[in-house]
Amino acid sequence: MPKKFAELQARMTPQSRVEAKLLFQQHLQEMPLHELRKAQQLSQASLAKALNINQAAVSKMERRTDMYISTLRDYIRAMGGELEIIATFPDGQVKIDNFAC
Amino acid sequence: MPKKFAELQARMTPQSRVEAKLLFQQHLQEMPLHELRKAQQLSQASLAKALNINQAAVSKMERRTDMYISTLRDYIRAMGGELEIIATFPDGQVKIDNFAC
Repeated sequence: MPKKFAELQARMTPQSRVEAKLLFQQHLQEMPLHELRKAQQLSQASLAKALNINQAAVSKMERRTDMYISTLRDYIRAMGGELEIIATFPDGQVKIDNFAC
Repeated sequence: MPKKFAELQARMTPQSRVEAKLLFQQHLQEMPLHELRKAQQLSQASLAKALNINQAAVSKMERRTDMYISTLRDYIRAMGGELEIIATFPDGQVKIDNFAC
């Protein structure tokens, strides 16, 4: 049955609502993939090895402005992270779980 | 110059650190695309119209477990939201901005 955001929010605990509001207000650090890799002190070569592709393919991937979600997830996992897909609306945020695997 | 997460965190304000920690601890509501659409009280037909595709294509898109980031962004924007790509690590979260446009 369809639920409005207001109804969904009403079912959240007060603590969850406070945290969701903080999340909405905060500004996460933003960076492109190659900077994130450098922040994790990984080279293109080591990432290429983890992904079982060559270094040129990693370099090319880092310059792309669009890619499959699965490709991005593989790249982030190779750095030891997890991909999260968030949809942000004026009245809240939702994590999209179609692509979880 | 490569930065470790610890260095990046050291440059955050105390408030940002608290908020980032809360974000890491909290659990956002998770749902698949079709539930999010229903929560926004939108039909496949209205979304199809906004995306300039037919309803069958929207239905197919909602059943996919992988797609281009740009396709997902278009879908979320058609609902009035914004897509955010987050990489979560044991020591923090980063927003990936390769795909911003």
